[in-house]
Amino acid sequence: YLTAELEEHFPADIAAILYEVNGEQAHYLLQLLDTEKGAEVLSNIEKEDLKKFIKEQFTVEEISTYVNLFDSDDAVDLLNQLPIEFREKIIASLEDREQARFIIDLMHYPEDVAGGLMQKELVKVKMGQTVSECVEEIRDQAENVDKVYAVYVVDDHQILKGIVSLKQLVLARRNTRVENIFEEDIVYVDTTKSGDEVAQIMQKYDLEAIPVVNALGRLLGVIMIDDVIDFITEKAEDDIQKMAGITDDVEEDDSVWKLAKSRIPWLVIGVFGSLMAASVIHQFENILARISALAMFIPIMGSTGGNVGIQTSSLIVQSLSEKTPLEMSLGQRLVKVVQVALINGIIVGIVAGVYVYIIGEPDLFWVVFLSLISVVILASFMGTITPLVLEKFGVNPAIASGPFITTANDLIGIGTYFLIASSLLNLQ
Amino acid sequence: YLTAELEEHFPADIAAILYEVNGEQAHYLLQLLDTEKGAEVLSNIEKEDLKKFIKEQFTVEEISTYVNLFDSDDAVDLLNQLPIEFREKIIASLEDREQARFIIDLMHYPEDVAGGLMQKELVKVKMGQTVSECVEEIRDQAENVDKVYAVYVVDDHQILKGIVSLKQLVLARRNTRVENIFEEDIVYVDTTKSGDEVAQIMQKYDLEAIPVVNALGRLLGVIMIDDVIDFITEKAEDDIQKMAGITDDVEEDDSVWKLAKSRIPWLVIGVFGSLMAASVIHQFENILARISALAMFIPIMGSTGGNVGIQTSSLIVQSLSEKTPLEMSLGQRLVKVVQVALINGIIVGIVAGVYVYIIGEPDLFWVVFLSLISVVILASFMGTITPLVLEKFGVNPAIASGPFITTANDLIGIGTYFLIASSLLNLQ
Ligand SMILES: [Mg+2]
Ligand SMILES: [Mg+2]
Ligand SMILES: [Mg+2]
Ligand SMILES: [Mg+2]
Ligand SMILES: [Mg+2]
Ligand SMILES: [Mg+2]
Ligand SMILES: [Mg+2]
Ligand SMILES: [Mg+2]
Ligand SMILES: [Mg+2]
Ligand SMILES: [Mg+2]
Ligand SMILES: [Mg+2]
Ligand SMILES: [Mg+2]
Ligand SMILES: [Mg+2]
Repeated sequence: YLTAELEEHFPADIAAILYEVNGEQAHYLLQLLDTEKGAEVLSNIEKEDLKKFIKEQFTVEEISTYVNLFDSDDAVDLLNQLPIEFREKIIASLEDREQARFIIDLMHYPEDVAGGLMQKELVKVKMGQTVSECVEEIRDQAENVDKVYAVYVVDDHQILKGIVSLKQLVLARRNTRVENIFEEDIVYVDTTKSGDEVAQIMQKYDLEAIPVVNALGRLLGVIMIDDVIDFITEKAEDDIQKMAGITDDVEEDDSVWKLAKSRIPWLVIGVFGSLMAASVIHQFENILARISALAMFIPIMGSTGGNVGIQTSSLIVQSLSEKTPLEMSLGQRLVKVVQVALINGIIVGIVAGVYVYIIGEPDLFWVVFLSLISVVILASFMGTITPLVLEKFGVNPAIASGPFITTANDLIGIGTYFLIASSLLNLQ
Repeated sequence: YLTAELEEHFPADIAAILYEVNGEQAHYLLQLLDTEKGAEVLSNIEKEDLKKFIKEQFTVEEISTYVNLFDSDDAVDLLNQLPIEFREKIIASLEDREQARFIIDLMHYPEDVAGGLMQKELVKVKMGQTVSECVEEIRDQAENVDKVYAVYVVDDHQILKGIVSLKQLVLARRNTRVENIFEEDIVYVDTTKSGDEVAQIMQKYDLEAIPVVNALGRLLGVIMIDDVIDFITEKAEDDIQKMAGITDDVEEDDSVWKLAKSRIPWLVIGVFGSLMAASVIHQFENILARISALAMFIPIMGSTGGNVGIQTSSLIVQSLSEKTPLEMSLGQRLVKVVQVALINGIIVGIVAGVYVYIIGEPDLFWVVFLSLISVVILASFMGTITPLVLEKFGVNPAIASGPFITTANDLIGIGTYFLIASSLLNLQ
């Protein structure tokens, strides 16, 4: 009964159920399904989560029967999570020797380049073949290749020559030759293309699949859009974590230690930055002792600097990641940044200036007003230049929209404030 | 010559060229292309950018000829950017009256729900039809429907019953009836489903297209994966801007005023927060006057609170946006948050404590150490609870990972510090 019930669900939904139950129960449920559906379910579970589960509950033979039916890209993603001995045993005991060859081919690509995103399963034909033969080719591969959007046309040396879309295939007469209907101008990528670029290309040209070739132009595999979407999503999450100052790729259900560890680096850097700010304040203790009201405006300098810095840098990081040709030169950009900063600095300065009058410290008006304007301008500069510099040195500029900018601007803000205070108040 | 050169390029590449030249040149280049290619090029330009360009360079008739050939979703996106009089003139002068009907049908959906993402162009068949008839249907629609992944099966009342994938169609015999090969268990959405949910569903089930129905189950349109990818990308950019405290959806090439305006709200809120911190410091001016070294540690309390708050809230925001069933109760979550905070608080406290000794203010050790631990714990609490509360009130919780958290934690950090200082130092 349970079997009948389960068989009715989509694999992705059964996968979600497996997340809810414990390992033993999941193992039991999987055994109720036929192997093919079981494999589909397992390929819907994130490989990292699958790893633990599989090692505890399955024998090598059981894993093999499932991996046998996986798409080659999913098979490799899973095997790369397992210890080497385990991995080799599984490959050795795979029934489908083509699958074993596919896996070995794919195993050596880094996971974030085209080679690491592609699957080997695809349908290919030669120029001289007819539409009927294409259809037979699809039929032969039907079990192996889940989604078919097109058949790929290669020459005798497996060099990619073009594609025939399934739509063209449906519409063409059965005896038409491939050479008469194939599309020659197609977009493809090299195995070494970065995942980001693959995603941008597929988005730009609205592709649901993109063929992957080696340096000689030989067709090696194809990247499917669903895997690229997973890649983009994972990447966007990572960038947000980087912006938030979290170093590892963590999730809420990771261990307390792992969570704590992922936060420590930027917290400690932040602390060092703040202690440098403390040292700056230390330098000006004389003036602070005389005019203790000055201490009140320490927070506003730090936090305004931080906020402006992040606002500015996040726009720069975004335009960098879009990789559209930069329409502005650095000079034009900085002029614009200063204009925006002036407007915002004056507004912020006036709000704070009013407060200075309200609390009855009118002597501090010009100090607070001019310091805030300077802080906003300096922070805008920092926010513009830091991501550009990081990008130049090959560091992910998303880091720059995070705690680095706040830390640096806290320091700059407080330094500027005390310099202006001590010169305006003529007290040093 | 230029025409031949241009015709060789992909529409998306020509669109990129148009971004590089001025409006008049772009208009000239477009006229070199045949209308169909021109329409493809234009549908690759972001509708917001297209708006200005089109209003300045094109007559209503010219726009009509292009809009006539657009997919209905792109046509509506463009028309919704134009003033009403203009819009109505264009619809009235459309040659293709079916296109006009499509546009009018789609026009009233908000752009961020399924109805606003779908296109009307699709191929549909009835149960009783044969594979040959399906193929004829595709042929009839070939000009109108660019990408075909499947034909949709409806009954006499246009109620969606299932799909036949193109792969099935290729493999089936020509005289097979649809009812014998169609797939009944399919995923579809209602017109009111949010764009986020559509994206999650398509990602979960690895769909390249999803049919859209009304409340009665009538097939109204289909959403293509490329449009969902554009939606996801735009949304991710918006979230990052929200996290950075930028309120409008701005880009670097917007006007100085627009850029300045988008930053003002959170800057001013930040200033009010900092001025409240100033008022807190004002309350403790006595103790500050006596122990002026206390001022040195104002920045560390604010910035550590801010950093911890953002680290915590960004993880919560992420697990909220994944919409996977929350595996932890609020209680469990808070316990874990406090554990992580304790570890990090102690480490940060020790680093700062060492500094306190180095600068020769050992009396302040316990004040700084205990304040930092308290600040880290309180900020972690805030970072956990704020997004959950915002989510409950229907506010985008991404805002909570931004300046709100830093501002609130600056204030809490500084308040905690002075409370601990004044009680430990017994000076009030
Ligand atoms: Mg992979
Ligand atoms: Mg296989
Ligand atoms: Mg696109
Ligand atoms: Mg795949
Ligand atoms: Mg996948
Ligand atoms: Mg992750
Ligand atoms: Mg701060
Ligand atoms: Mg739309
Ligand atoms: Mg049309
Ligand atoms: Mg998926
Ligand atoms: Mg579209
Ligand atoms: Mg589109
Ligand atoms: Mg935008």
